[in-house]
Amino acid sequence: MIRFQVPLSRIVTFTTDFGAQDAYVPAMKGAVLSRAPGASLIDISHLVPPQDIRAGGFILRQAVSQFPRDAIHVAVVDPGVGTERRGIAVTTAHGSFVGPDNGLLYPVIAALDGVDMRTGSLLDVVAVSLEARQFQAGSVSRTFHGRDIFAPAAGWLAAGESILSLGTTIDRIVPGNSDEAHLEGTRVRGEVVYIDHYGNAITDIPERLIPRAATVSIGNTVIPEVSRTYRDARVLALVGSAGTLEISVRDGSAVRELGIYVGQPVEVRLSP
Amino acid sequence: MIRFQVPLSRIVTFTTDFGAQDAYVPAMKGAVLSRAPGASLIDISHLVPPQDIRAGGFILRQAVSQFPRDAIHVAVVDPGVGTERRGIAVTTAHGSFVGPDNGLLYPVIAALDGVDMRTGSLLDVVAVSLEARQFQAGSVSRTFHGRDIFAPAAGWLAAGESILSLGTTIDRIVPGNSDEAHLEGTRVRGEVVYIDHYGNAITDIPERLIPRAATVSIGNTVIPEVSRTYRDARVLALVGSAGTLEISVRDGSAVRELGIYVGQPVEVRLSP
Amino acid sequence: MIRFQVPLSRIVTFTTDFGAQDAYVPAMKGAVLSRAPGASLIDISHLVPPQDIRAGGFILRQAVSQFPRDAIHVAVVDPGVGTERRGIAVTTAHGSFVGPDNGLLYPVIAALDGVDMRTGSLLDVVAVSLEARQFQAGSVSRTFHGRDIFAPAAGWLAAGESILSLGTTIDRIVPGNSDEAHLEGTRVRGEVVYIDHYGNAITDIPERLIPRAATVSIGNTVIPEVSRTYRDARVLALVGSAGTLEISVRDGSAVRELGIYVGQPVEVRLSP
Repeated sequence: MIRFQVPLSRIVTFTTDFGAQDAYVPAMKGAVLSRAPGASLIDISHLVPPQDIRAGGFILRQAVSQFPRDAIHVAVVDPGVGTERRGIAVTTAHGSFVGPDNGLLYPVIAALDGVDMRTGSLLDVVAVSLEARQFQAGSVSRTFHGRDIFAPAAGWLAAGESILSLGTTIDRIVPGNSDEAHLEGTRVRGEVVYIDHYGNAITDIPERLIPRAATVSIGNTVIPEVSRTYRDARVLALVGSAGTLEISVRDGSAVRELGIYVGQPVEVRLSP
Repeated sequence: MIRFQVPLSRIVTFTTDFGAQDAYVPAMKGAVLSRAPGASLIDISHLVPPQDIRAGGFILRQAVSQFPRDAIHVAVVDPGVGTERRGIAVTTAHGSFVGPDNGLLYPVIAALDGVDMRTGSLLDVVAVSLEARQFQAGSVSRTFHGRDIFAPAAGWLAAGESILSLGTTIDRIVPGNSDEAHLEGTRVRGEVVYIDHYGNAITDIPERLIPRAATVSIGNTVIPEVSRTYRDARVLALVGSAGTLEISVRDGSAVRELGIYVGQPVEVRLSP
Repeated sequence: MIRFQVPLSRIVTFTTDFGAQDAYVPAMKGAVLSRAPGASLIDISHLVPPQDIRAGGFILRQAVSQFPRDAIHVAVVDPGVGTERRGIAVTTAHGSFVGPDNGLLYPVIAALDGVDMRTGSLLDVVAVSLEARQFQAGSVSRTFHGRDIFAPAAGWLAAGESILSLGTTIDRIVPGNSDEAHLEGTRVRGEVVYIDHYGNAITDIPERLIPRAATVSIGNTVIPEVSRTYRDARVLALVGSAGTLEISVRDGSAVRELGIYVGQPVEVRLSP
């Protein structure tokens, strides 16, 4: 019997604020497929709120943990396109990342232990700034690096080229929001970091900081306990699928009904 | 010459009410690809109206008939996540299905002749409740079984594992809405079962029950004949692509202009 | 060592006004996969404004240039479905196209040099009207040729069948909007051809017609120069990623703030 190995197609994911109507996203996909015709393309989200770097990083971070370790993740939320901000590619033990160096990728790399939190240096990753010309579009526009630089870089990686062929190695990237709740005495203070499709408010307070008998305060709302499922109360707090505290209204929208906004302080304390 | 067979990648489809913005859908896709890296992933819809089990079943049913018979369909419209409702997988002659056992999959299985309509028992299918631990996420959340149980089960099937390895066989699932118009003398009484993107109102009245010369009544609107195409009249009734009677307004929205709603009675009678 | 070639999966793209909620798009995908199970499916857009043939052609044209030359592009914006309009398939040096012959594909084929602009005849392409029965659905509806004719034709091509097996060759297709700005003395007169997700207004004035020092007029707005990036001014004109003049408002919507509409005249003249 003859054994052989069929090369598995590389997975390339896309996270952008480009929306689903225009040709921007499929142009990026075409640019990947032109370089790696067998790549398997997956959308993370194209409905990142326009130019919201923090939300883009949050969404990507939640999804990445589920993907195979050899996936390539392209993220483009890029208000500074065409200015001096550089493009980067970073390969970690949990996937490779390509995008603008504007803080978008930082929380994702940090969550994957790719940043030394004392010094801000990169740790156990290979990172480059996207300077080589060979992988880029023949003519690079000043307004659409997603199509002309980032997707081509991802296609280049998906085709099996080395990340080192994309540019010069770097040891630091632009810091972004790395959400972190903290203890103040017996209270945990955090904030709302993301609002989802259902109007649930997701916070940065991880399960391990939440006492067994806890009271949650946000704005004028006090929630006397932490529930287990979305059916347990009408206005409720629970540990959501992100592994952090989430505020939810059953069959309704916590954001609309409670007036919650991203960045709003949330406090958890031991119930009396 | 040496012949060999390259295994075709299994198709996995997704039907949810998770929307297109958040990380919920791509997290499910990652969970499939981590178990079956070569799977070919197709979105049915992620815009099922929130928690609308009937609409989810309708959309899935319309799409499934077009897919290859070895496709795996994951559906998650799951208001009871984290409560006692169980998860199920069902393999029929026309595809495999994975999701919560809350009535969502029933009309699809029934339309594929997988239910004995007299007794409600399953017929010519293999069905299991998703109890085995081996295929599930290492830690199962109480709020997101799509990521932690259903997508992993689909990935397990896509990787070639037996449905029997997912749990215990069952012979009955929770009944759901199986739309069925009926004859009353010379009249056919049915109802609106779905409103589409264009504002067309799709009913449960199949073509075979519609007389050649028919008058259609819905609310205060009387439509004197059944048209052949969307250009034949302004307010019109025709046999739509679901194979059932559909009410439509040319270059407009039947729902908005005629005040139609899901569940509204529709009557077809022989024209005088 | 034994060498062999694994056949690459053919890429099939989809451009429609079907929206993302209903079963229409996945039914088309199922119809392709039933005929070509290994095809790689990519969405261009399903949010073409309803029945807007011009916008559909614009979006497809922008995306196509990035795709491999053997990709198959299905486009369905089809207000005349079920009437006498015919379906067509066209193979060019830059990809194959399938859809209704209603002007939708014309600007795309023309942009790929597939039309003799003096005579309107097709040039260096193979085009057929979709008449053969063998590739179509067993029963063809009058309302959904996307599922019953166009997707099946694409699946047939993706499975390796010849375009000639789909029907009769033709040498002319229905002309559509082929946007073309023109010089009038020292002024360039063009118009707005598309509004994107951000509210940017994209015109038909190509970079080569724009003088180095130019003033742009649209409605009551006069923009005194052409910028390089989206950060250079608040109300600005620049050469966008389509390679044509684009009107944009930084951190805002040009369409809402300036009252721009598709078809609105735009003028570029040499700055004094």
